[in-house]
Amino acid sequence: MYFIGIDIGGMSIKAGIVDETGKLYVKKAIPTQPERHYTAIVADMAKLCHTICEESGIDIKSIQGIGIGSPGTVNGAIGQITYSCNINFDQVPVVDELRKYIDVPTYVDNDANCAALGEVKFGSCKGLDDAILVTLGTGVGGGVITEGKMLVGKNGGGGEVGHITLKVGGRKCGCGKYGCWEAYASATALVRQTKMAISRHPNSLMSDIVAKEGKVSGRTAFIACRQGDPTAMAVVKQYVQYVAEGLLSLINIFRPDVIAIGGGVSNEGDYFIDMLQEYVDKFTYGGGNNPHTTVRKAQLLNDAGILGAAALCL
Amino acid sequence: MYFIGIDIGGMSIKAGIVDETGKLYVKKAIPTQPERHYTAIVADMAKLCHTICEESGIDIKSIQGIGIGSPGTVNGAIGQITYSCNINFDQVPVVDELRKYIDVPTYVDNDANCAALGEVKFGSCKGLDDAILVTLGTGVGGGVITEGKMLVGKNGGGGEVGHITLKVGGRKCGCGKYGCWEAYASATALVRQTKMAISRHPNSLMSDIVAKEGKVSGRTAFIACRQGDPTAMAVVKQYVQYVAEGLLSLINIFRPDVIAIGGGVSNEGDYFIDMLQEYVDKFTYGGGNNPHTTVRKAQLLNDAGILGAAALCL
Repeated sequence: MYFIGIDIGGMSIKAGIVDETGKLYVKKAIPTQPERHYTAIVADMAKLCHTICEESGIDIKSIQGIGIGSPGTVNGAIGQITYSCNINFDQVPVVDELRKYIDVPTYVDNDANCAALGEVKFGSCKGLDDAILVTLGTGVGGGVITEGKMLVGKNGGGGEVGHITLKVGGRKCGCGKYGCWEAYASATALVRQTKMAISRHPNSLMSDIVAKEGKVSGRTAFIACRQGDPTAMAVVKQYVQYVAEGLLSLINIFRPDVIAIGGGVSNEGDYFIDMLQEYVDKFTYGGGNNPHTTVRKAQLLNDAGILGAAALCL
Repeated sequence: MYFIGIDIGGMSIKAGIVDETGKLYVKKAIPTQPERHYTAIVADMAKLCHTICEESGIDIKSIQGIGIGSPGTVNGAIGQITYSCNINFDQVPVVDELRKYIDVPTYVDNDANCAALGEVKFGSCKGLDDAILVTLGTGVGGGVITEGKMLVGKNGGGGEVGHITLKVGGRKCGCGKYGCWEAYASATALVRQTKMAISRHPNSLMSDIVAKEGKVSGRTAFIACRQGDPTAMAVVKQYVQYVAEGLLSLINIFRPDVIAIGGGVSNEGDYFIDMLQEYVDKFTYGGGNNPHTTVRKAQLLNDAGILGAAALCL
């Protein structure tokens, strides 16, 4: 069985043909040109579907379904992208519009939810009914699968896990609230924390790394930490606490089997994951009396958007 | 149709006969004697069911179902109370045991989840598919109904909303974690905050109230705040922030139609509820673009335990 996954981003729209095992046969991207009217964008999406079918030699009539992942608030039940701040989307009936061109079962959901679904269907959380994906990138995003079902909240307006409170009265977040998890646990926040530590401790090994690499990145503190630099170790320890305390909020609410960590910071691998696991094991509510939650690295990486969107069809 | 709701507490076990509209016909309580083996406790629960039927003249054969609310971790799917720290419960097959005495469909869930279900079936959130009950009492408890279903988490181990992080690295909570919402937003925490404010500002009107009432209570700061005492106003304002920031975490995850506030502090009524509403409206993610969450007072009060347990049968 073949499905098409479409991953709408602010810069580009990617689409690929995926089978029920998560094998990706072909993928292609086009520019989003997000300022256009949605009818023009959806017309391009339809063309892109035809193109990837032609290029792969898969007859479009054999496509069983199309899944669409979009940034912003999505009301999947009515096939609508309610709102996105990066693209000119305001109550866009994307499913109905795309079916004007290709009449197969079509689904839409928030891209972070799609990515979580992709991990459950094809990746790090395969086969699990209770799993959460948390992505540590520019912001903190994620999706929650609980008791076999994707949590979307009323009209798709929930699931904003990056905007739970981590520090009451804390740092202002891009969303307007203060002290959000995203303001402390994103890769962006890690870069800020690293810069601040370097400015206070210019003799740290991190200064050498920055000189060599030309900039501070989310990797800077981790590289120096692995080499035993005490300032970097303090940065990483603090960052682990920020990430882990948000994970604990999610664990105490959802008690998932697995929390998968995605986004750029997850490339630190087991070194980072093991520190998170140790922290959450120590402080999970009910300790040993409750089911254990495993923290692990997400698997789908670059194609997560396409695979997750296609997973909506399963 | 008649159902029996059984509310197990550390001190007493209450049971009542309830109909499908939430009308309570009779109720009665017996001491729990929590140190006993569970078979003795369940035998007493069965006797209590017979007693309330006899006293109300309702034939036990006309009882359509029994619902049980218990503190601690409950695995409703297998009818088991997994663990409770206040009662001698360790993997108690309460449903099977009670059905030895009264063979009708029998259900069990965590008492806070039952209370939330009661609000949805009979109380402040009647008919809603997306609602959360938060109780501000000795601790902070609650239950989440999302898309028409009670959130219980893997094996019933989730839903511990009082133990989401409010202040990373903050005050130690009874659960062993630091900075939990419960450590700042419970009535217990409000009393502590009030005492601290009085010790710093002994000339506050609150000192007079304490002298008259003989002790600091969760009401002390609210009484003085309503009379314009600046120290009390600061206590209430801070407490509202603590409560509201936890509500915001739940709203951003679940986007419910309503959050109902129960527990002792909710008796402050609209004065308190309006302050919470104003705060969460200001900081909810996505603001006006997302569905609105209304904060209101819970309705079921004293009989919430019985009504909520009975609601498990519906």
